[in-house]
Amino acid sequence: MSDRAEKRDLLYAGKAKRVYSTERPDEVIIHYSDDATAYNAQKRGAIADKGVFNNAISAYLFQLLARNGIATHFIEKLSDREQCCKRVAIIPLEVIPRNWIAGSMARRLGIKEGTRPPNSICDLCYKDDALGDPLINEDHAVALGVTTYAELKQIYARARRINALLQAEFDRVGIVLVDCKLEFGKGARGDLLLADEISPDTCRLWDRLTLKKLDKDRFRRDLGAVGEAYAEVLQRLERTD
Amino acid sequence: MSDRAEKRDLLYAGKAKRVYSTERPDEVIIHYSDDATAYNAQKRGAIADKGVFNNAISAYLFQLLARNGIATHFIEKLSDREQCCKRVAIIPLEVIPRNWIAGSMARRLGIKEGTRPPNSICDLCYKDDALGDPLINEDHAVALGVTTYAELKQIYARARRINALLQAEFDRVGIVLVDCKLEFGKGARGDLLLADEISPDTCRLWDRLTLKKLDKDRFRRDLGAVGEAYAEVLQRLERTD
Repeated sequence: MSDRAEKRDLLYAGKAKRVYSTERPDEVIIHYSDDATAYNAQKRGAIADKGVFNNAISAYLFQLLARNGIATHFIEKLSDREQCCKRVAIIPLEVIPRNWIAGSMARRLGIKEGTRPPNSICDLCYKDDALGDPLINEDHAVALGVTTYAELKQIYARARRINALLQAEFDRVGIVLVDCKLEFGKGARGDLLLADEISPDTCRLWDRLTLKKLDKDRFRRDLGAVGEAYAEVLQRLERTD
Repeated sequence: MSDRAEKRDLLYAGKAKRVYSTERPDEVIIHYSDDATAYNAQKRGAIADKGVFNNAISAYLFQLLARNGIATHFIEKLSDREQCCKRVAIIPLEVIPRNWIAGSMARRLGIKEGTRPPNSICDLCYKDDALGDPLINEDHAVALGVTTYAELKQIYARARRINALLQAEFDRVGIVLVDCKLEFGKGARGDLLLADEISPDTCRLWDRLTLKKLDKDRFRRDLGAVGEAYAEVLQRLERTD
């Protein structure tokens, strides 16, 4: 057996990533592309080198979380656009800690974008493209048969801890973590693992001083300099001073 | 002071009810009209004598709940279309226990209408016409400043108990309580009171054998015989055999 898993069949083609099986049943290779979609794929485009930036940012953050005791699917970065991860059965829920109110949540609640709520907010959405990934509550998630109340309790506790770790890391480099979308999966032994990616595609990141958006909202809202923002996030995280 | 409160100023004109002050600061008179709206008032109409049926059904059910220890705003039925209630500050939340999946929740979750979930479901919506009364979760309700986590715990416990009592009563007369929309308010001493109404406008009620709809879905979906359905619900509840 070689040191590194080798790519075999395409298992899943997502909007911005492709997942391949390897010769190892418990490992996959995830390829990060430059494709970008927004508003449930109603808006489509590409951001030059996004796959390279997101692969690097995600690898960096998964390693940081692992050092802090968070179980994740990440194994190692293989190349500019590929990383090796544990194969997981994704729980079809988006778990979204929100530190500031922005985006669809600002519209839903009639609260101005950029408001800091007095409490910590965590949303749950049902991952289903045909339904538009609707916001749901815990009862709905259990009714859908995708999780249990006990597992949800574990997921929320994990999400809160991940959010706190990410907030602290982004704060170190002058970035506000506005919100982030987390996905969890079950590993080979049924253990709960943080999966998917953590990047400007899945987090809202604002410069702390100027509140300049450094995330996919630049693409969603046609603000320009999208790739530059992704590059800046990576650059800042890699700063060790 | 007379035995009965007397109507003074119009305090609030809702879609199907009007609320008047009385000479007593802690009591209001609620007038039930025949006006019907659906889909956040995009559909409008009238249902002959709906106000009479809903006033009677609501009075009947509030009295039943009170006998079972539920604190409500209801004081007494004054006439065909009017009831006297305690004046409350409404908490702008719709609390919706769902025993079967129907309506917007069936569409949201991609679950067939009429499915019985394995767990008990309770939705929370933010009462705000301009926003379309959006589904929210507990964190959002607290962030909006309309309630606290402690009060929500009390509201959910109360809603579960009310739902169980209503289910049992409708079951007695061969009706399935599919779901119901509850609203709570704070009385003069800050006590939590069940408020608004409980009627075929605010509950989904299906005949247990035929699953015939006996509620506002007949109006929403143009199924005809709307007033007859409301009359049948009242008739069945008044059956004492």
